[in-house]
Amino acid sequence: MRKKIVPDIVVGRLPIYLRVLNYLIAEGRQITSSQELGDRLGISSAQIRKDLSHFGEFGKQGTGYNVVFLRDQLKEILNVDRIWKMIMVGAGDLGHALANYHRFASSGFEIMAIFDNDPDKVGTKMGEQPIYDVADMDQFIEDNEIKMAVIAVPTVAARDVAAKLIECGVTSILNYAPVTLTVPIGVRVQYIDPVARLQHMTYYQNEETE
Amino acid sequence: MRKKIVPDIVVGRLPIYLRVLNYLIAEGRQITSSQELGDRLGISSAQIRKDLSHFGEFGKQGTGYNVVFLRDQLKEILNVDRIWKMIMVGAGDLGHALANYHRFASSGFEIMAIFDNDPDKVGTKMGEQPIYDVADMDQFIEDNEIKMAVIAVPTVAARDVAAKLIECGVTSILNYAPVTLTVPIGVRVQYIDPVARLQHMTYYQNEETE
Repeated sequence: MRKKIVPDIVVGRLPIYLRVLNYLIAEGRQITSSQELGDRLGISSAQIRKDLSHFGEFGKQGTGYNVVFLRDQLKEILNVDRIWKMIMVGAGDLGHALANYHRFASSGFEIMAIFDNDPDKVGTKMGEQPIYDVADMDQFIEDNEIKMAVIAVPTVAARDVAAKLIECGVTSILNYAPVTLTVPIGVRVQYIDPVARLQHMTYYQNEETE
Repeated sequence: MRKKIVPDIVVGRLPIYLRVLNYLIAEGRQITSSQELGDRLGISSAQIRKDLSHFGEFGKQGTGYNVVFLRDQLKEILNVDRIWKMIMVGAGDLGHALANYHRFASSGFEIMAIFDNDPDKVGTKMGEQPIYDVADMDQFIEDNEIKMAVIAVPTVAARDVAAKLIECGVTSILNYAPVTLTVPIGVRVQYIDPVARLQHMTYYQNEETE
C-alpha cells in the first residue's frame, strides 16, 4: 500500500506539525484543533486541514484532533516510528557539535559512526561515537545497511563524499557543507545553510527599517 | 527607490545563486550562463532567468552573465554588501559551535556578543566573543543598533528570548530552538531544524527502497 503523491512542500510541513503535537502531549493536552495548531505555527487552519487531508481523516468536524492519535499517524506517515541509523562524515568543529546534538538521538536518528580522513582522529571518539577511517566507510554502510548520512566535511570535499555515500547505497543526505549536490533520482538531499538563511532575511531589512 | 514585491521563495533562492557565483569567481571564471548555474544547482535555467528577471537585466541574450557583476548585484539586492552586526543568545554546546562557525564572519555576519544567564559563563569568552549577562542585552542592542540575532537557547526559553529581542528592536532572528515563534509584522524568523529536515527525507525512504 503506497501513499498517493503529495506535494513536497506539504511533506516538509509535517515535521513541524509533529513537533507541535509533541509539545502539546508534553503539556498534557489530549485534543487540539486546526485553529490552535495554526495559531501556534503562524499558518492558517485551512492550510493545516488541507495538508492533513492528503493523508486521510484525522479528526471529526467540531471535535478536533486527538493529539496522541494524530502524532502517531504523522510519525507513521513520515516513517519516524522507528530508529534510523545514520553515519556522519567529518570530525571537525561542526562534526563535533553535531555529535553532541542530542535531538538527533531523541528523535530516533542515531549516529552510529563518524568517518574522517585525519589519522590523528581515526580510532578516537567524538561524543559517544567512534571515529573510523573514511576508507572503511563503504564496508560499514553495507554491513549496517545505512541509508542516511550527515555531511559535515569542508566545502571542497563535500561533492566527493556525497558521490561515495550514494555509490554505497545512501539515499538521504543532510548536507551541512555550503555546496549544492547533484544527485541521482531516488536520492534526497536537505541542506543546512545558516548564512543563506541570514541573507534571506537581510533582503527585507532595508524596506522595514527605512 | 524600493524594489517591487518579489515572491519570498524567489528571495530565498538568491543566496544560493550568490553562493555559486562566489565559487565560480574562486575558480577564476568570468562569464556564466543560466544553463550552467542551473546545472550546478539542479534547477532549470528558465527558473533562474525568471527569478533574476524580477530584479532587472543582468545578462545579454547569447553572451551570458558577467560573474562578478551578477555577484555584486545580488549582494546589493540582498543587502549583504556590508557588515551585519549580530548577537547570539545562548552559550551552551550549540552556541559554542556557532561561535566557532567561521562562515558567519566571512559572509559579513559578525557576532558581536553572546548573552547567557549562567553566572559561571558571564564574563568569559566563547570563540572571539565575550559572554555577557542576558540582563544587559537590551542596552547592548540599543547601543549597537543590533537588528539581527541568533537564538541558541534551550527550547523552553526560546519564546521569551525572542519576545525580548523583538521588544529591543531586533527584526531578524535565526532560530535554532525547535519551536515556532509567533512574531509581529516586520519581524522575520528563519529556522534551523536538522531533525525536521531528516524527517522530511524519511518520508520518501519507503517508496524508494521497497
